[in-house]
Amino acid sequence: MFASLLPLLFVQAAAAQAIGRTQPDPRSPTEILAAAPTSDWRQIAAEDMLVMELAGGRRVVVQLMPVTFARAWIGNIRTLATAEWWDGTSINRVQDNYVAQWGDASEKKPLPPGLSTSSEADYTVAATSLDQREITRGPADVYARATYFYRGWPIAGDEGWPNGGVQKGFVRGSRAWPVHCYGTVGVGRDVSPNTGTGAELYTVIGHAPRHLDRNIAVVGRVIAGIEHLSSLPRGTVGLGFYARPEQRVPIERLRLASALPVAERPRFEYLATNSPTWARYASARANRKDAFFIQPAGAADICNIPVPVRAIP
Amino acid sequence: MFASLLPLLFVQAAAAQAIGRTQPDPRSPTEILAAAPTSDWRQIAAEDMLVMELAGGRRVVVQLMPVTFARAWIGNIRTLATAEWWDGTSINRVQDNYVAQWGDASEKKPLPPGLSTSSEADYTVAATSLDQREITRGPADVYARATYFYRGWPIAGDEGWPNGGVQKGFVRGSRAWPVHCYGTVGVGRDVSPNTGTGAELYTVIGHAPRHLDRNIAVVGRVIAGIEHLSSLPRGTVGLGFYARPEQRVPIERLRLASALPVAERPRFEYLATNSPTWARYASARANRKDAFFIQPAGAADICNIPVPVRAIP
Repeated sequence: MFASLLPLLFVQAAAAQAIGRTQPDPRSPTEILAAAPTSDWRQIAAEDMLVMELAGGRRVVVQLMPVTFARAWIGNIRTLATAEWWDGTSINRVQDNYVAQWGDASEKKPLPPGLSTSSEADYTVAATSLDQREITRGPADVYARATYFYRGWPIAGDEGWPNGGVQKGFVRGSRAWPVHCYGTVGVGRDVSPNTGTGAELYTVIGHAPRHLDRNIAVVGRVIAGIEHLSSLPRGTVGLGFYARPEQRVPIERLRLASALPVAERPRFEYLATNSPTWARYASARANRKDAFFIQPAGAADICNIPVPVRAIP
Repeated sequence: MFASLLPLLFVQAAAAQAIGRTQPDPRSPTEILAAAPTSDWRQIAAEDMLVMELAGGRRVVVQLMPVTFARAWIGNIRTLATAEWWDGTSINRVQDNYVAQWGDASEKKPLPPGLSTSSEADYTVAATSLDQREITRGPADVYARATYFYRGWPIAGDEGWPNGGVQKGFVRGSRAWPVHCYGTVGVGRDVSPNTGTGAELYTVIGHAPRHLDRNIAVVGRVIAGIEHLSSLPRGTVGLGFYARPEQRVPIERLRLASALPVAERPRFEYLATNSPTWARYASARANRKDAFFIQPAGAADICNIPVPVRAIP
């Protein structure tokens, strides 16, 4: 629209890395990742992971977003985990092709002191709050004018590179927000203007519910053990809640990884989304060339380019 | 591109029904469906449904596509069901955020006589083979130049309404193909040029794997009981196959609904995608206005506008 008339606040850190603009790489996404130099991976801090333990040794690891997004909710989540608030709560809702949700089924458990309240405006952030060196352009999108990857996370924005793909960056006044993909973790809430505290969390177990973007706080993503949530029996009453209390799945323990003994801490790393390997990987996801594919799609939606996360041996 | 220079073979049956072009409707998608006249629904023929029964009374119903698409594979599937070929086979693969797959794990069970072989060209059909009265425009798409709904099915095409949204229809030489959404049923196959017989089937249990479009035959969708597949334990060896034979889920019986006694046949109907209700429903899916939403997306991808299917009482 009028983007070209406004001062540009951000420029693309690595213009050559835009999806579809790299030289064709004959390798599969898996082969590209296997060949990635160590310098293209970044370790996830123990302070940025939640470890949820269900009965039977089922462990789910959630990576929290950079606090640039959802700052107050993520602060609350750290407070709740430190207070061991989720211990003894449960997974109460599993709705097919939608979400698995956990928290206090009684809705009466007292919350720890010191939680913050967020406003609906906090579902998005000013583009100026982002570190421009960390922004890489994402694919075309049906829901938002532009998409990006930022510090390993898929995000959307209301302004982008408006001139036919020329790298322009955000314009003044732009907002950015995290998007809902498979595995995204968000904050359950009541109807507006309630924004939730972070005590009630869900993860996406179906097709990306992108209509939730900017309507709910996104705070993280499941990086290990999502099968322990996605394969749970579906709830049979409204919205997939379990009909009987005994169907709920008890949460034995939920901690920040940094609160666990060192030997018990998970160790993970993600592929830096402003790295050379990322550009090759994202392009390969859009243009599968391995023996199985006869017709490369030539494109991929932002949720079909999952940011690689792997355990550190 | 050059579409406007070529003769137009198809025109939109109901131009006013294009998504986003209707008058705003304050109702939710659920309210719109509840108010739909009977004439906007169409019963699914018993010949077009497969009924798969797993142990424990778990019943999965698959609706087959109109044979305009995947004609030979769907013919094979009818032959296989009539031969009761799947009875005693099993669900052998459940890969998280991808597919649940069933068939003969031994890969040695003889196939019934009379199966046809398809070519890769059959993954798409000529737009001229479609009934123009049944075509309704679908939403913008990342993967294909255009999308449509056809007889209750989401499809994509390589030409569409190219002039900024003006209703133009397909141009000569256009191809159309079904798309992979949550619940889509497709035909497992080996590497190219193998196209599969239809004996090995899968359904999507995660984010739409649209990169499979035009690479695999789409033959149907699960319209009831998908939770019996999506909540199965994930397989732990390559591609989500079960490691041990006893983990496989036996298929007790798989039949065309028309082969069942009348009293046992499922009865379903779908919302006609060229009906007035469809236009309102699709628009409401893209612009949620119920109390929960504060920021309507203003758009929906084709897999987030699932065609309503409901049991007939």
